[in-house]
Amino acid sequence: MTAEAPRRRGRPSRTEEESGPGSRERILDAARAEFAERGYDKASVRGIARAAGVDPALVHHYFGTKDEVFAAAIEVSFEPAAVVPAIVAGPRDAIGERLARFFIGVWENPVSRAPLLATVRSALTHEAAAKVLRTFVLRRLLERIAAELDVPEPALRAELAASQMIGIVIMRYVIKVEPLASADPEAIVAQVAPTLQRYLTEG
Amino acid sequence: MTAEAPRRRGRPSRTEEESGPGSRERILDAARAEFAERGYDKASVRGIARAAGVDPALVHHYFGTKDEVFAAAIEVSFEPAAVVPAIVAGPRDAIGERLARFFIGVWENPVSRAPLLATVRSALTHEAAAKVLRTFVLRRLLERIAAELDVPEPALRAELAASQMIGIVIMRYVIKVEPLASADPEAIVAQVAPTLQRYLTEG
Repeated sequence: MTAEAPRRRGRPSRTEEESGPGSRERILDAARAEFAERGYDKASVRGIARAAGVDPALVHHYFGTKDEVFAAAIEVSFEPAAVVPAIVAGPRDAIGERLARFFIGVWENPVSRAPLLATVRSALTHEAAAKVLRTFVLRRLLERIAAELDVPEPALRAELAASQMIGIVIMRYVIKVEPLASADPEAIVAQVAPTLQRYLTEG
Repeated sequence: MTAEAPRRRGRPSRTEEESGPGSRERILDAARAEFAERGYDKASVRGIARAAGVDPALVHHYFGTKDEVFAAAIEVSFEPAAVVPAIVAGPRDAIGERLARFFIGVWENPVSRAPLLATVRSALTHEAAAKVLRTFVLRRLLERIAAELDVPEPALRAELAASQMIGIVIMRYVIKVEPLASADPEAIVAQVAPTLQRYLTEG
């Protein structure tokens, strides 16, 4: 708010509008798009503000630094992942299949794929982005999954399952190696489900 | 050589030295280091030439474009992978364990890890680098592995095994998620071996 004050004098009505209901969501949408299109390095708070039709100070006011905007944007991108612990908590004998099918479904949907892909690419090339992913998203998500598991070293098991899924993402959606890139999603689910099942349930 | 000609008049002896035995290897070493340190985007033929102590024209003479230098450099980085088909061709009942142990060993060695990591990062962010990896390295390597397999859809199976290994790389060496990042290599081998075994041998 302090940063806004001097500008406000010049155009009070715009700031009023900007901070109205929906501006927070508009900023998050713009941030997702900006990070997805330009990558972590080239995305800027200024560019996000422009796309959202708000003042950069409002972005800072709601979210803080670029890192924090990124964290908020990828939390939104990972929203589908919020249901993963519930999936894991269901009947044991088909955890692997449920998880594989849900995961492939999210990645097969172009709307959810674009921001996730941007997050993965950013985390792979920028330590700041990797730290955000590690700290804000993966740790929280994987800890919640691990809490549902009844195996030795549940945290390691949850990460092994995640590693299989991220490997599929890299080969199928990023490097696009054939025949995996064009394989039927259900064929992948059938192959990957027993892997996840073993990591998450077998002692 | 044509491009070299005008310069040669000025300093004939240096060019003589440059193109002497070992210059090709020096260029490749420099290229590996340059791609590892600066990434695909920022690496340049000029920088590689400087590090190798040769004229940029000699780099072009031996390898061609930057893409082709990259391809040659990553083929060298993937040299350990050349033994993978032999590993796969060995006794069936422990393919997964042999492959997991070899793979983790290569990545645990900082000397082989640095250029591999650079290749992975580049391929994940630059389509040109992804294409080189897909076309020159992965296809050839995975086809040779698939040729040794006695399962339905061997190419897909080889890629699923590769996806598990690349996922481990991402989680352990790139994003560095704990506890996987600090886990004992043998603990990872023990977990991953059955996954690879199933992909590569079970119908």
